[in-house]
Amino acid sequence: MKLVSYTRDGATRHGYVVDEAATVAELGDGDLGALVEAGAGTTTGWRPGDTVGTHRLADVAVRAPITRPTKVLAVAANYQEHVAEGGGEPLDKQTLAPRLFLKPGTSITHPGADIALPTVSTQVDWEAELVVVVGRGGRDIPVEQALEHVAGYAVGNDVSARSVDYGYERDTSSSAVGFFDWLAGKWPDGFAPYGPYLVTADEVPDPQDLDVELEVNGTLRQKGSTADMIFTVAELVAFASRLMTLEPTDIIMTGTPAGVGAASGTYLAPGDQMTVRIAGLGTLTNRVV
Amino acid sequence: MKLVSYTRDGATRHGYVVDEAATVAELGDGDLGALVEAGAGTTTGWRPGDTVGTHRLADVAVRAPITRPTKVLAVAANYQEHVAEGGGEPLDKQTLAPRLFLKPGTSITHPGADIALPTVSTQVDWEAELVVVVGRGGRDIPVEQALEHVAGYAVGNDVSARSVDYGYERDTSSSAVGFFDWLAGKWPDGFAPYGPYLVTADEVPDPQDLDVELEVNGTLRQKGSTADMIFTVAELVAFASRLMTLEPTDIIMTGTPAGVGAASGTYLAPGDQMTVRIAGLGTLTNRVV
Repeated sequence: MKLVSYTRDGATRHGYVVDEAATVAELGDGDLGALVEAGAGTTTGWRPGDTVGTHRLADVAVRAPITRPTKVLAVAANYQEHVAEGGGEPLDKQTLAPRLFLKPGTSITHPGADIALPTVSTQVDWEAELVVVVGRGGRDIPVEQALEHVAGYAVGNDVSARSVDYGYERDTSSSAVGFFDWLAGKWPDGFAPYGPYLVTADEVPDPQDLDVELEVNGTLRQKGSTADMIFTVAELVAFASRLMTLEPTDIIMTGTPAGVGAASGTYLAPGDQMTVRIAGLGTLTNRVV
Repeated sequence: MKLVSYTRDGATRHGYVVDEAATVAELGDGDLGALVEAGAGTTTGWRPGDTVGTHRLADVAVRAPITRPTKVLAVAANYQEHVAEGGGEPLDKQTLAPRLFLKPGTSITHPGADIALPTVSTQVDWEAELVVVVGRGGRDIPVEQALEHVAGYAVGNDVSARSVDYGYERDTSSSAVGFFDWLAGKWPDGFAPYGPYLVTADEVPDPQDLDVELEVNGTLRQKGSTADMIFTVAELVAFASRLMTLEPTDIIMTGTPAGVGAASGTYLAPGDQMTVRIAGLGTLTNRVV
């Protein structure tokens, strides 16, 4: 099932897609957050309640599935070819841990929304990513049970400023400065678009077999497969839950394949359009302005 | 005014302290989040609404002012003596930026709450900190106006695991591993207690002139003054708002003075009690278990 949040008549609603992305059956007010908290998409067997109407998808404005996830976790360096294009050595998952970081809720934006290039960077880059939406919370979740905690999946883009410039001459010689700048580059408003659907987990038989593509202005820039993740979705969920309690509506951005702009020194300019596609999950388009 | 969140008869409520911390005048249901969104404590002139009753503070269980802040921002390395005790060179704020990071909402816990030592670390440490609660949101806030965006202040503790151990032999030779471990050490459940009050900004004439103390089991460990912050509250608010939109109910933990356990190799053990005091803001006590 493709669950979807949207605005209609000025208010946010949620529903599910009925026929090939042409019609949405409305389930209620607000975004999908409450439905996910109630068990949407988990293997505990949620079914949609009474439909309160149907609308043409063309007549509504699709929104991010959940506008304010309880946490926005993301993972750095989760595809070997992406690590290599950044100049890194191959990572051995047997001797390393996933490299998690947090993005703020204000980084979430919607399918089709414009993303303003921040004043603090001229090196803004794309990162096509599979997004996991947590349905059932938990702590110390065993990896074998981790996928049972996933409500569903979405297409995402971990937009990233590769450098930050605060307008004065800084001493960037210490590695700490580099790390904190790297983190800050993940945080600007709108730097975490995702959607257009929350595709329930039952429709994604193997999250490690999904083609991921990103185009900028129609030119293919990234083309990978979730088969090449270093840490799988199940491993990421299990690992994160060892550090902190996962809650329903947390999202996890699972890392990006090779082909980011930084590898070739190509950065986003006003008017550029990014299109991310993941097989079976839909297409996410955002323009930078 | 000392605003306070608490539970009474099994439900969360909020109010303000009437007389020397003995009586609370109840203002309504839920924690202080809605009141802060409505302008509590900002210079725009909020006044408490009708009181719906009074209760003895001893009869209620005080909670964190806002249990799920929209963002939990924190700052590393914001007191020179703390930087020095960690082996760092003095930081020159003219050539550096504040070192911000995020903690997850699940790290928030309440005054008096037990904090479970996580399974992934044996080096858990304290960090007494002044906490800023954002009342009025904004972007690119000028430093001269930044304090007008502060609803109030609270006592906080940025509990930190100085090392993490995931139970297998890892290759920790790269600086990236160290940085991601450092980040993860800030995230466990309960690692951001704050409270007991949200003291409105009008009662804190100078946030850069507050004595900060922390005791562990009655022994003084930290004793500093916010006068010694490298970046002031106003500078932190202004800086953070250049990176992302600040929203009402965001909180900012402003860094810790010298005296953390890591400096002497002293870490928290089950049963240890941490008590943080900030002049005029009250006392925050948590036990680790």
